[in-house]
Amino acid sequence: MTPTDTSLTGTETPGQESPSATPLNSTIQTQLNHRTIRAFTNEPVDSEQVETLIDVARHTPSSSFYQQMTLIRILDPKVRQAVYQASGQPYVGAPRGELFIFVVDLSRTARTREQAGQSLEPVGRATVFIQGVEDTLLAAQNVVVAAESLALGTCLLGSIGGDPELLIDTLKLPKYTYPLVGLLVGHPDQAPQLKPRLPRLITTAVDSYPDPSSPEYQQAWSRYDEEIQTYYDLRDQGRRQDTFTNQLLVKVGGGKAEKIDMLSVLHQQGLCTH
Amino acid sequence: MTPTDTSLTGTETPGQESPSATPLNSTIQTQLNHRTIRAFTNEPVDSEQVETLIDVARHTPSSSFYQQMTLIRILDPKVRQAVYQASGQPYVGAPRGELFIFVVDLSRTARTREQAGQSLEPVGRATVFIQGVEDTLLAAQNVVVAAESLALGTCLLGSIGGDPELLIDTLKLPKYTYPLVGLLVGHPDQAPQLKPRLPRLITTAVDSYPDPSSPEYQQAWSRYDEEIQTYYDLRDQGRRQDTFTNQLLVKVGGGKAEKIDMLSVLHQQGLCTH
Repeated sequence: MTPTDTSLTGTETPGQESPSATPLNSTIQTQLNHRTIRAFTNEPVDSEQVETLIDVARHTPSSSFYQQMTLIRILDPKVRQAVYQASGQPYVGAPRGELFIFVVDLSRTARTREQAGQSLEPVGRATVFIQGVEDTLLAAQNVVVAAESLALGTCLLGSIGGDPELLIDTLKLPKYTYPLVGLLVGHPDQAPQLKPRLPRLITTAVDSYPDPSSPEYQQAWSRYDEEIQTYYDLRDQGRRQDTFTNQLLVKVGGGKAEKIDMLSVLHQQGLCTH
Repeated sequence: MTPTDTSLTGTETPGQESPSATPLNSTIQTQLNHRTIRAFTNEPVDSEQVETLIDVARHTPSSSFYQQMTLIRILDPKVRQAVYQASGQPYVGAPRGELFIFVVDLSRTARTREQAGQSLEPVGRATVFIQGVEDTLLAAQNVVVAAESLALGTCLLGSIGGDPELLIDTLKLPKYTYPLVGLLVGHPDQAPQLKPRLPRLITTAVDSYPDPSSPEYQQAWSRYDEEIQTYYDLRDQGRRQDTFTNQLLVKVGGGKAEKIDMLSVLHQQGLCTH
């Protein structure tokens, strides 16, 4: 691959993971090799490492420096059981791996303003909610990278969105907060293959959105469908017949966390009302 | 600091950056030293590095593997001018540093379903929009970490939210997409001090939300206000008198990107309607 601007729109070789630019250091090498790990050994994560991961979360960039994120570590098996119930994923219920919940937290902002007799109107805005969402998700990915740099495996859990009210109740989350994603971190007990990503031509562009009606785009899409089909066909565990196109047709909207009325829960929490 | 579970709730020493756990490797050392860089030298970012950053974005975890993010690199000065206009931040207008726009992209999902005669109803759900937001922000932070590991400086730009319609028009973004955040990457031309974060006792907890009415919490908050006051008082550039409390009272809701009617624009884009 020639690293020029135009290579941004280069297509990928079908049937194999996309040729990436040379990993320039160990951080990037780890990032380019990211796989989700859902099975962990019994070995606990070292407590110093846990502390470090929490500090990495705290040092993540924050929108306007409002720091609208709270990180809750789950140690109580009863609480973990509730998270498992919300998620429905067996690897959340298994007692392996550290479990964290990343909470969008505008309650500090709200409380501070309330105590000073200031309007809470801005706290209900979608724009300000999204600032908190930014803080929360940037922190989650920062912890993922840190954990993987320590040779730990990670699994982000959007699935906890399957029952936000249960989590709000269990974690005693106040108004103006929302439990957005979970994260499992542990010593990997599996070594899944690298999953091919959509080609650059489809997910990246220069100056304006790529044209989906162009022959190059359509060809890249078809090749990617073949590539994903081959990936599922060849991978060691969980073989299945599937294409990317088929996943977008069959799976989207079908997961438990994709079916809940999120806006209603957000409104109950005083968030994203306008 | 003793790295035990209880140290999660330890308070911080006022007047200095919080004592972090030992950085365990170079990745984490970089993460714990994150500062926003807003001034860049004239030296361009190496093209191979740009390619690598784009590949890092592509290899970020993705919710349900729908890959609902598109990354647009800005090279055209006219397009950059529009991004500057949306943002209002002078360092976006300056021709220094690479500029990227991270776009929440449910349009591939929508188009695929439309072509197969499948319902678009799930694409309008808040839960599915948030999945795209997750893909987008996780990718943005992944690129931040990669760039900083290359000794480049970064500035995330929530400020582009100041005029999403201008960006949708300029970048020719289709329905079911939303330009969420920008990112500047370049060679740093400043070395700002590390900004103290809210103490662990306030932003992290075990099993349930921290009690804001506890004396420990309130003491930690007051100390942090003093710490931030000292930080602003001592820092080399942009000295000012301020506390964290005061920022939450005065700044929240005041920024250009915090004032727009985001829900209306999302609804125009067919997103987050229910």
